[in-house]
Amino acid sequence: MKKSLGANTIVPTTPVWVVGTYDKEGKPNVMTAAWGGVCCSKPPCIYVSLRKATYTYHNIVERKAFTVSIPSENYTKEADYFGITTGKKVDKFSETGLTPEKSDLVDAPYVKEFPLVLECKLLKVVEIGLHTEFIGEIVDVKADSSVLNEKNLPDIEKVKPIVWNMAGMTYHKVGKSTGQAFSIGKEI
Amino acid sequence: MKKSLGANTIVPTTPVWVVGTYDKEGKPNVMTAAWGGVCCSKPPCIYVSLRKATYTYHNIVERKAFTVSIPSENYTKEADYFGITTGKKVDKFSETGLTPEKSDLVDAPYVKEFPLVLECKLLKVVEIGLHTEFIGEIVDVKADSSVLNEKNLPDIEKVKPIVWNMAGMTYHKVGKSTGQAFSIGKEI
Repeated sequence: MKKSLGANTIVPTTPVWVVGTYDKEGKPNVMTAAWGGVCCSKPPCIYVSLRKATYTYHNIVERKAFTVSIPSENYTKEADYFGITTGKKVDKFSETGLTPEKSDLVDAPYVKEFPLVLECKLLKVVEIGLHTEFIGEIVDVKADSSVLNEKNLPDIEKVKPIVWNMAGMTYHKVGKSTGQAFSIGKEI
Repeated sequence: MKKSLGANTIVPTTPVWVVGTYDKEGKPNVMTAAWGGVCCSKPPCIYVSLRKATYTYHNIVERKAFTVSIPSENYTKEADYFGITTGKKVDKFSETGLTPEKSDLVDAPYVKEFPLVLECKLLKVVEIGLHTEFIGEIVDVKADSSVLNEKNLPDIEKVKPIVWNMAGMTYHKVGKSTGQAFSIGKEI
Protein backbone atom coordinates (compact mmCIF):
# COMPACT_ATOMS: atom_id res chain seq x y z
CA MET A 1 0.00 0.00 0.00
CA LYS A 2 1.23 3.46 -0.88
CA LYS A 3 1.87 6.07 1.76
CA SER A 4 0.06 9.43 1.64
CA LEU A 5 2.38 12.45 1.45
CA GLY A 6 -0.35 15.09 1.30
CA ALA A 7 -1.36 17.63 -1.32
CA ASN A 8 1.84 19.20 -2.64
CA THR A 9 4.03 19.65 -5.70
CA ILE A 10 6.98 17.34 -4.94
CA VAL A 11 6.88 15.88 -8.42
CA PRO A 12 9.89 14.50 -10.29
CA THR A 13 10.85 16.09 -12.55
CA THR A 14 10.32 19.57 -13.93
CA PRO A 15 12.64 21.61 -16.16
CA VAL A 16 15.05 24.39 -15.23
CA TRP A 17 14.15 27.24 -17.53
CA VAL A 18 15.52 30.76 -17.48
CA VAL A 19 12.81 33.24 -18.46
CA GLY A 20 14.02 36.41 -20.16
CA THR A 21 12.07 39.69 -20.22
CA TYR A 22 12.48 43.45 -20.49
CA ASP A 23 11.02 45.74 -17.85
CA LYS A 24 9.21 49.02 -18.56
CA GLU A 25 12.50 50.87 -18.90
CA GLY A 26 13.98 48.25 -21.18
CA LYS A 27 16.26 46.68 -18.56
CA PRO A 28 16.81 43.00 -19.39
CA ASN A 29 15.99 40.52 -16.64
CA VAL A 30 16.04 36.77 -16.14
CA MET A 31 14.47 34.44 -13.60
CA THR A 32 14.60 30.69 -13.23
CA ALA A 33 11.31 28.79 -13.35
CA ALA A 34 10.68 25.12 -12.69
CA TRP A 35 6.94 25.44 -13.27
CA GLY A 36 7.10 25.32 -17.05
CA GLY A 37 6.49 22.92 -19.91
CA VAL A 38 5.15 22.35 -23.38
CA CYS A 39 1.38 22.70 -23.57
CA CYS A 40 0.50 22.53 -27.28
CA SER A 41 2.01 21.24 -30.53
CA LYS A 42 -0.01 23.37 -32.99
CA PRO A 43 0.57 26.22 -32.47
CA PRO A 44 3.76 25.23 -30.65
CA CYS A 45 3.36 26.59 -27.13
CA ILE A 46 5.07 26.52 -23.78
CA TYR A 47 4.00 28.01 -20.49
CA VAL A 48 5.69 29.35 -17.40
CA SER A 49 3.77 29.78 -14.14
CA LEU A 50 4.81 32.78 -12.07
CA ARG A 51 3.79 34.48 -8.84
CA LYS A 52 2.62 38.10 -9.00
CA ALA A 53 5.45 38.92 -6.58
CA THR A 54 8.06 38.33 -9.29
CA TYR A 55 9.54 41.07 -11.44
CA THR A 56 9.14 38.86 -14.50
CA TYR A 57 5.37 38.60 -13.98
CA HIS A 58 4.91 42.32 -14.52
CA ASN A 59 7.42 42.40 -17.38
CA ILE A 60 5.45 39.78 -19.32
CA VAL A 61 2.16 41.59 -18.67
CA GLU A 62 3.77 44.79 -19.96
CA ARG A 63 5.73 43.44 -22.93
CA LYS A 64 3.55 40.48 -24.01
CA ALA A 65 6.65 38.43 -24.75
CA PHE A 66 9.29 36.28 -23.08
CA THR A 67 12.12 33.93 -23.94
CA VAL A 68 13.26 30.71 -22.32
CA SER A 69 17.01 30.04 -22.29
CA ILE A 70 18.07 26.49 -21.43
CA PRO A 71 21.12 26.48 -19.14
CA SER A 72 23.75 23.78 -19.61
CA GLU A 73 24.77 21.91 -16.48
CA ASN A 74 27.91 24.07 -16.13
CA TYR A 75 25.59 27.06 -15.57
CA THR A 76 23.81 25.51 -12.56
CA LYS A 77 25.20 28.19 -10.26
CA GLU A 78 23.93 31.01 -12.49
CA ALA A 79 20.52 29.33 -12.87
CA ASP A 80 20.19 29.09 -9.10
CA TYR A 81 21.28 32.71 -8.70
CA PHE A 82 18.61 33.78 -11.21
CA GLY A 83 16.04 32.01 -9.03
CA ILE A 84 17.02 33.41 -5.64
CA THR A 85 17.52 37.07 -6.56
CA THR A 86 15.10 39.66 -7.92
CA GLY A 87 15.47 42.03 -10.84
CA LYS A 88 13.86 44.71 -8.68
CA LYS A 89 17.10 44.95 -6.74
CA VAL A 90 19.95 43.65 -8.89
CA ASP A 91 21.06 43.50 -12.50
CA LYS A 92 21.36 39.74 -12.81
CA PHE A 93 23.24 39.91 -16.10
CA SER A 94 26.01 42.17 -14.85
CA GLU A 95 26.27 40.27 -11.55
CA THR A 96 26.87 36.95 -13.37
CA GLY A 97 28.79 38.35 -16.33
CA LEU A 98 26.32 36.78 -18.76
CA THR A 99 25.11 38.62 -21.85
CA PRO A 100 21.54 39.72 -22.69
CA GLU A 101 20.94 39.25 -26.41
CA LYS A 102 17.92 41.02 -27.91
CA SER A 103 15.57 38.66 -29.74
CA ASP A 104 14.97 39.80 -33.30
CA LEU A 105 11.47 38.28 -33.24
CA VAL A 106 9.93 39.10 -29.86
CA ASP A 107 10.27 41.93 -27.36
CA ALA A 108 12.49 40.04 -24.90
CA PRO A 109 16.16 39.19 -24.34
CA TYR A 110 17.77 35.78 -23.98
CA VAL A 111 21.02 34.54 -22.44
CA LYS A 112 23.64 34.51 -25.17
CA GLU A 113 25.88 31.97 -23.43
CA PHE A 114 23.13 29.34 -23.02
CA PRO A 115 23.01 26.82 -25.90
CA LEU A 116 19.28 26.69 -26.67
CA VAL A 117 16.65 29.42 -26.67
CA LEU A 118 12.87 29.66 -27.24
CA GLU A 119 11.37 32.97 -28.34
CA CYS A 120 7.72 33.38 -27.38
CA LYS A 121 4.93 35.86 -27.81
CA LEU A 122 2.27 35.86 -25.11
CA LEU A 123 -0.82 33.96 -26.25
CA LYS A 124 -2.90 33.43 -23.13
CA VAL A 125 -2.93 34.21 -19.41
CA VAL A 126 -4.56 31.70 -17.05
CA GLU A 127 -5.20 32.63 -13.43
CA ILE A 128 -4.94 29.55 -11.22
CA GLY A 129 -4.12 30.57 -7.64
CA LEU A 130 -0.80 31.74 -6.22
CA HIS A 131 0.61 31.22 -9.71
CA THR A 132 -0.49 32.69 -13.01
CA GLU A 133 0.18 30.67 -16.11
CA PHE A 134 1.63 32.55 -19.07
CA ILE A 135 1.17 30.57 -22.29
CA GLY A 136 3.53 31.67 -25.03
CA GLU A 137 3.52 30.71 -28.67
CA ILE A 138 6.99 29.62 -29.74
CA VAL A 139 7.96 31.86 -32.66
CA ASP A 140 11.40 30.31 -33.07
CA VAL A 141 13.85 27.94 -31.42
CA LYS A 142 17.50 28.97 -31.70
CA ALA A 143 20.58 26.93 -30.86
CA ASP A 144 24.33 27.16 -30.95
CA SER A 145 25.69 25.21 -33.93
CA SER A 146 27.97 23.37 -31.51
CA VAL A 147 25.00 21.52 -29.89
CA LEU A 148 23.35 20.39 -33.13
CA ASN A 149 23.60 16.86 -34.52
CA GLU A 150 23.83 15.79 -38.18
CA LYS A 151 20.05 16.21 -38.54
CA ASN A 152 20.33 19.84 -37.36
CA LEU A 153 18.53 18.96 -34.13
CA PRO A 154 19.74 19.73 -30.60
CA ASP A 155 21.76 16.79 -29.23
CA ILE A 156 20.84 16.37 -25.56
CA GLU A 157 24.34 15.14 -24.74
CA LYS A 158 25.71 18.44 -26.05
CA VAL A 159 22.98 20.76 -24.72
CA LYS A 160 23.39 19.14 -21.27
CA PRO A 161 20.17 20.58 -19.78
CA ILE A 162 19.41 20.16 -16.08
CA VAL A 163 16.19 19.09 -14.38
CA TRP A 164 14.64 20.10 -11.08
CA ASN A 165 13.95 17.74 -8.20
CA MET A 166 11.58 19.58 -5.87
CA ALA A 167 11.58 16.95 -3.13
CA GLY A 168 15.34 17.17 -2.68
CA MET A 169 15.72 20.81 -3.82
CA THR A 170 18.45 19.64 -6.18
CA TYR A 171 19.40 20.20 -9.83
CA HIS A 172 20.33 17.12 -11.86
CA LYS A 173 22.01 16.19 -15.10
CA VAL A 174 20.11 14.24 -17.71
CA GLY A 175 21.50 10.70 -17.74
CA LYS A 176 21.76 7.87 -20.22
CA SER A 177 18.95 6.93 -22.56
CA THR A 178 16.64 4.14 -21.39
CA GLY A 179 15.03 3.61 -24.79
CA GLN A 180 13.86 4.94 -28.11
CA ALA A 181 10.26 6.18 -28.19
CA PHE A 182 7.63 4.71 -30.52
CA SER A 183 9.92 1.70 -30.67
CA ILE A 184 10.78 0.04 -27.35
CA GLY A 185 7.05 -0.27 -26.48
CA LYS A 186 6.42 -2.39 -29.56
CA GLU A 187 8.14 -5.28 -27.81
CA ILE A 188 4.96 -5.69 -25.72
CA MET B 1 25.29 33.63 -33.59
CA LYS B 2 22.57 31.12 -32.90
CA LYS B 3 20.98 29.11 -35.66
CA SER B 4 17.21 29.25 -36.25
CA LEU B 5 15.47 25.86 -35.97
CA GLY B 6 11.95 27.13 -36.63
CA ALA B 7 8.79 27.20 -34.52
CA ASN B 8 8.51 23.79 -32.85
CA THR B 9 8.48 22.01 -29.50
CA ILE B 10 11.92 20.32 -29.45
CA VAL B 11 12.55 21.44 -25.90
CA PRO B 12 14.72 19.59 -23.39
CA THR B 13 13.30 18.26 -21.16
CA THR B 14 9.72 17.37 -20.34
CA PRO B 15 8.50 14.65 -17.97
CA VAL B 16 7.22 11.16 -18.75
CA TRP B 17 3.89 10.96 -16.98
CA VAL B 18 1.35 8.17 -17.18
CA VAL B 19 -2.18 9.60 -16.97
CA GLY B 20 -4.80 7.29 -15.44
CA THR B 21 -8.54 7.59 -16.11
CA TYR B 22 -11.77 5.59 -16.20
CA ASP B 23 -13.96 5.58 -19.29
CA LYS B 24 -17.77 5.83 -19.28
CA GLU B 25 -18.09 2.10 -18.57
CA GLY B 26 -15.51 2.21 -15.80
CA LYS B 27 -12.70 0.59 -17.77
CA PRO B 28 -9.34 1.82 -16.45
CA ASN B 29 -7.00 3.35 -19.02
CA VAL B 30 -3.54 4.90 -19.07
CA MET B 31 -1.69 7.04 -21.57
CA THR B 32 1.76 8.56 -21.50
CA ALA B 33 2.05 12.33 -21.75
CA ALA B 34 5.18 14.45 -22.10
CA TRP B 35 3.22 17.71 -22.25
CA GLY B 36 2.72 18.01 -18.50
CA GLY B 37 4.09 19.95 -15.56
CA VAL B 38 3.42 21.79 -12.34
CA CYS B 39 1.48 25.01 -12.85
CA CYS B 40 0.61 26.27 -9.36
CA SER B 41 1.81 25.86 -5.77
CA LYS B 42 -1.39 27.00 -3.97
CA PRO B 43 -3.58 25.16 -4.69
CA PRO B 44 -1.02 22.55 -5.78
CA CYS B 45 -1.79 21.93 -9.46
CA ILE B 46 -0.41 20.06 -12.40
CA TYR B 47 -1.60 19.97 -16.00
CA VAL B 48 -1.52 17.53 -18.86
CA SER B 49 -2.13 18.69 -22.44
CA LEU B 50 -4.00 16.21 -24.61
CA ARG B 51 -5.37 16.00 -28.15
CA LYS B 52 -9.10 15.46 -28.58
CA ALA B 53 -8.22 12.31 -30.54
CA THR B 54 -7.08 10.54 -27.37
CA TYR B 55 -9.28 8.25 -25.30
CA THR B 56 -8.02 9.94 -22.14
CA TYR B 57 -9.28 13.36 -23.29
CA HIS B 58 -12.89 12.16 -23.25
CA ASN B 59 -12.42 10.23 -20.02
CA ILE B 60 -11.26 13.35 -18.18
CA VAL B 61 -14.14 15.41 -19.59
CA GLU B 62 -16.54 12.69 -18.40
CA ARG B 63 -15.04 11.87 -15.00
CA LYS B 64 -13.51 15.25 -14.03
CA ALA B 65 -10.50 13.48 -12.52
CA PHE B 66 -7.19 11.90 -13.42
CA THR B 67 -4.06 10.52 -11.82
CA VAL B 68 -0.42 10.75 -12.84
CA SER B 69 1.75 7.71 -12.13
CA ILE B 70 5.51 8.23 -12.39
CA PRO B 71 7.21 5.27 -14.07
CA SER B 72 10.63 4.19 -12.85
CA GLU B 73 13.30 3.75 -15.52
CA ASN B 74 12.75 -0.03 -15.54
CA TYR B 75 9.21 0.63 -16.84
CA THR B 76 10.37 2.59 -19.92
CA LYS B 77 8.99 -0.11 -22.22
CA GLU B 78 5.55 0.02 -20.59
CA ALA B 79 5.54 3.84 -20.62
CA ASP B 80 6.29 3.82 -24.34
CA TYR B 81 3.60 1.20 -24.95
CA PHE B 82 1.07 3.38 -23.09
CA GLY B 83 1.94 6.19 -25.49
CA ILE B 84 1.71 4.33 -28.79
CA THR B 85 -1.51 2.37 -28.21
CA THR B 86 -5.07 3.52 -27.60
CA GLY B 87 -7.54 2.46 -24.95
CA LYS B 88 -10.20 2.48 -27.64
CA LYS B 89 -8.70 -0.73 -28.99
CA VAL B 90 -6.73 -2.44 -26.24
CA ASP B 91 -6.77 -2.97 -22.49
CA LYS B 92 -3.36 -1.52 -21.70
CA PHE B 93 -3.30 -2.90 -18.16
CA SER B 94 -3.94 -6.51 -19.16
CA GLU B 95 -1.53 -6.26 -22.10
CA THR B 96 1.33 -5.12 -19.85
CA GLY B 97 0.37 -7.12 -16.77
CA LEU B 98 0.29 -3.97 -14.66
CA THR B 99 -2.41 -3.36 -12.06
CA PRO B 100 -5.01 -0.56 -12.01
CA GLU B 101 -5.52 0.60 -8.42
CA LYS B 102 -8.63 2.66 -7.70
CA SER B 103 -7.85 5.99 -6.07
CA ASP B 104 -9.75 6.43 -2.81
CA LEU B 105 -9.84 10.21 -3.33
CA VAL B 106 -10.62 10.84 -7.01
CA ASP B 107 -12.57 9.01 -9.71
CA ALA B 108 -9.52 7.59 -11.50
CA PRO B 109 -7.12 4.63 -11.30
CA TYR B 110 -3.33 4.66 -10.99
CA VAL B 111 -0.58 2.16 -11.77
CA LYS B 112 0.06 0.15 -8.62
CA GLU B 113 3.57 -0.90 -9.64
CA PHE B 114 4.81 2.67 -10.24
CA PRO B 115 6.50 4.21 -7.18
CA LEU B 116 4.91 7.66 -7.07
CA VAL B 117 1.38 8.80 -7.84
CA LEU B 118 -0.52 12.11 -7.99
CA GLU B 119 -4.31 12.09 -7.55
CA CYS B 120 -6.02 15.04 -9.20
CA LYS B 121 -9.49 16.50 -9.55
CA LEU B 122 -10.13 18.55 -12.66
CA LEU B 123 -9.94 22.27 -11.88
CA LYS B 124 -9.78 24.02 -15.24
CA VAL B 125 -9.83 23.27 -18.97
CA VAL B 126 -7.86 25.58 -21.29
CA GLU B 127 -8.31 25.32 -25.06
CA ILE B 128 -5.08 26.21 -26.82
CA GLY B 129 -5.00 24.64 -30.28
CA LEU B 130 -4.40 21.02 -31.21
CA HIS B 131 -3.95 20.36 -27.50
CA THR B 132 -6.31 21.07 -24.62
CA GLU B 133 -4.79 21.71 -21.26
CA PHE B 134 -6.39 19.93 -18.30
CA ILE B 135 -5.38 21.55 -15.03
CA GLY B 136 -5.86 19.28 -12.05
CA GLU B 137 -5.66 20.11 -8.38
CA ILE B 138 -3.41 17.63 -6.59
CA VAL B 139 -5.51 16.11 -3.83
CA ASP B 140 -2.78 13.77 -2.64
CA VAL B 141 0.67 12.46 -3.54
CA LYS B 142 1.22 8.80 -2.72
CA ALA B 143 4.49 6.88 -2.76
CA ASP B 144 5.85 3.43 -2.03
CA SER B 145 7.63 3.43 1.34
CA SER B 146 10.65 1.94 -0.43
CA VAL B 147 11.35 5.20 -2.31
CA LEU B 148 11.09 7.55 0.68
CA ASN B 149 14.08 9.05 2.48
CA GLU B 150 14.49 9.70 6.21
CA LYS B 151 12.43 12.94 5.84
CA ASN B 152 9.55 10.96 4.33
CA LEU B 153 10.15 12.59 0.94
CA PRO B 154 10.61 10.78 -2.37
CA ASP B 155 14.31 10.12 -3.03
CA ILE B 156 14.96 10.72 -6.72
CA GLU B 157 17.66 8.05 -6.76
CA LYS B 158 15.07 5.52 -5.61
CA VAL B 159 12.09 6.77 -7.65
CA LYS B 160 14.31 6.73 -10.77
CA PRO B 161 11.95 8.80 -12.97
CA ILE B 162 12.65 9.25 -16.66
CA VAL B 163 12.55 12.39 -18.79
CA TRP B 164 11.58 12.97 -22.41
CA ASN B 165 13.91 14.31 -25.08
CA MET B 166 11.69 15.34 -27.97
CA ALA B 167 14.53 16.20 -30.38
CA GLY B 168 15.99 12.69 -30.16
CA MET B 169 12.72 10.88 -29.39
CA THR B 170 14.48 9.24 -26.45
CA TYR B 171 13.73 8.55 -22.80
CA HIS B 172 16.51 9.32 -20.30
CA LYS B 173 17.47 8.59 -16.72
CA VAL B 174 17.93 11.44 -14.28
CA GLY B 175 21.66 11.77 -13.63
CA LYS B 176 23.84 13.07 -10.84
CA SER B 177 23.08 16.25 -8.94
CA THR B 178 24.79 19.40 -10.19
CA GLY B 179 23.97 21.45 -7.11
CA GLN B 180 21.71 22.28 -4.19
CA ALA B 181 19.08 24.94 -4.91
CA PHE B 182 18.86 28.19 -2.93
CA SER B 183 22.46 27.51 -2.04
CA ILE B 184 24.91 27.11 -4.94
CA GLY B 185 23.75 30.44 -6.42
CA LYS B 186 24.81 32.31 -3.27
CA GLU B 187 28.43 31.86 -4.37
CA ILE B 188 27.83 34.64 -6.92
